[in-house]
Amino acid sequence: MGIIKVGIDMSNIREIAKRAGIGIATVSRYLNDNGYVSEESKKKIQKVIEELNYTPNALARAVFTKNSKTIGLMVPNISNPFFNQLASVIEDYAKNMGYNIFLCNTDDDKEKEKNYLEVLKSHRVAGIIASRSQCKSEYSNINIPVVAFENHILDNIITVSSDNYNGGRMAFEHLYSKNCERILQIRGPKSFEATELRFEGFMDAAKDKGVEVSFIEFQSDFQVEMLEADINSMNDISQYDGIFVFNDIAAATIMRSLKKRGVTIPNQVKIIGFDNSFIGELLYPSLTTINQPIEEIGRTIVELLIKQINGDEVAVKDYILQTKLIERETTLSLEI
Amino acid sequence: MGIIKVGIDMSNIREIAKRAGIGIATVSRYLNDNGYVSEESKKKIQKVIEELNYTPNALARAVFTKNSKTIGLMVPNISNPFFNQLASVIEDYAKNMGYNIFLCNTDDDKEKEKNYLEVLKSHRVAGIIASRSQCKSEYSNINIPVVAFENHILDNIITVSSDNYNGGRMAFEHLYSKNCERILQIRGPKSFEATELRFEGFMDAAKDKGVEVSFIEFQSDFQVEMLEADINSMNDISQYDGIFVFNDIAAATIMRSLKKRGVTIPNQVKIIGFDNSFIGELLYPSLTTINQPIEEIGRTIVELLIKQINGDEVAVKDYILQTKLIERETTLSLEI
Repeated sequence: MGIIKVGIDMSNIREIAKRAGIGIATVSRYLNDNGYVSEESKKKIQKVIEELNYTPNALARAVFTKNSKTIGLMVPNISNPFFNQLASVIEDYAKNMGYNIFLCNTDDDKEKEKNYLEVLKSHRVAGIIASRSQCKSEYSNINIPVVAFENHILDNIITVSSDNYNGGRMAFEHLYSKNCERILQIRGPKSFEATELRFEGFMDAAKDKGVEVSFIEFQSDFQVEMLEADINSMNDISQYDGIFVFNDIAAATIMRSLKKRGVTIPNQVKIIGFDNSFIGELLYPSLTTINQPIEEIGRTIVELLIKQINGDEVAVKDYILQTKLIERETTLSLEI
Repeated sequence: MGIIKVGIDMSNIREIAKRAGIGIATVSRYLNDNGYVSEESKKKIQKVIEELNYTPNALARAVFTKNSKTIGLMVPNISNPFFNQLASVIEDYAKNMGYNIFLCNTDDDKEKEKNYLEVLKSHRVAGIIASRSQCKSEYSNINIPVVAFENHILDNIITVSSDNYNGGRMAFEHLYSKNCERILQIRGPKSFEATELRFEGFMDAAKDKGVEVSFIEFQSDFQVEMLEADINSMNDISQYDGIFVFNDIAAATIMRSLKKRGVTIPNQVKIIGFDNSFIGELLYPSLTTINQPIEEIGRTIVELLIKQINGDEVAVKDYILQTKLIERETTLSLEI
């Protein structure tokens, strides 16, 4: 990276050394984190630094050691319960490994993501987690370890995701097992690799059973007004007896809309979402969904990133984590 | 702050100046953002910087000019829809003013907040927005402008909040106008100033009408499992005909729990929340609530912070923004 080098002003190091009664070289090693410093000396230096009301030098240290102990986490939409749960999980694991998280909300907007990428680079973060990235070449030559979640970025960047294709298959098989015959699929935006795989899995499973499935495409992950408009444009939504929605928060909007039209769930129509985010349990009836192993996803991402930060070898490949069905009330069988 | 001073290595400045065909002093002014540089020179310098694959020097610039164009935003709980909406609003306004946001999730945990405060200081952010802070003296002598949301921090720090007290009064008056007689209030944790004011407003309004109100206290803002446990400990929740819940997301949990017990809303019990976050519209029936003017809150916070960053005078006082009732289905009058 650095054609810019920054240095701690020697007069400050002298000041600290003098007050702490310790050699300049030791203070320098401590500040630069590049050699042995005894516990006793560390304490003395720390005390002087506190007396001088001196902010711990993560910044200066980052520049020297190239490790700021801060990870930039790009999330596409912090209002989607799945992504805010994932952010919390990643934050917890990172903290356990001694790293702080700066959260950047990209809104699935390429320009915003590009801008945040520059900001994270200029703050010399130790690593970047890019969820549902809308960028590609912007990530080349950045010299900071990156792990992608869901959307692939470049060949040399690891991608972690749930097994979305199989999750889609499971969603179909579940509705089929519940005797749904007029099935609708609400498909996510085409720029989301994960929801496209869910779509394909669902369609393939339907084909295997010889079942025709209708589908419509939503333009957005989750914005209540926009989704409502999408739904209102579907005059015939109440004709279906089984609906798969590409994520839980969009499923919540669909449910609200169906209930407004007097359609009863699960009696008239069964609904299945995807994610197993907290919203599913709050809805009534509670939402059947496909679980993404959110803890495992978070742990895998953080571990792979920190290994790279530490210079350890990691296989550059897709890390795909298992999905599973969570049955709740929206697909309860009818009472006979 | 700085007993540490960092400088751009002169050899780099020379390199840029040489390649751009511009004087060293001009390059230095540009990099340090501390004097006039013509548009033409700016472009030339920028071009060389790009050729050298050189990360824009927000960091170096931050150290010199003390303005990193980055704001640290502490949120207590990113899973609470109100706080993630507020984060989005603040991010939008900040972006319009040329600032990026680093989001830090404190979980209402004093230690986490303290730690993030150190991280933000060490990254030399231009300003800090501290929502529902659990800290006090940690914010003294930090030499970075701070605006508090909801919880007060120190006498010299501006606090922005909604008019929670009057919101609480309105919530009572609404249930009262709907002829509720057996009224329960779900109170938030005592360390949240805002929900305590809602509590007091509600109680005072009840007293004015001579109505007795029961209340129970929740230990957390929002964690589904924890709230469920709180609710399950209340055997008699179905005896009430009007319930005020300290925020919308907790209200969603209460509604779910009541419906599980076969209690019908609004027929048997009317519910009112607080926030007017997006969750209220997704629930069925949709949630009556007290609106916090989230756009106005975000704008006010960002404006007050940036004024301070720019060295403009601002009155250190409480900025209190109006709340209002949003009537939806959970308090519909019974059909006669």
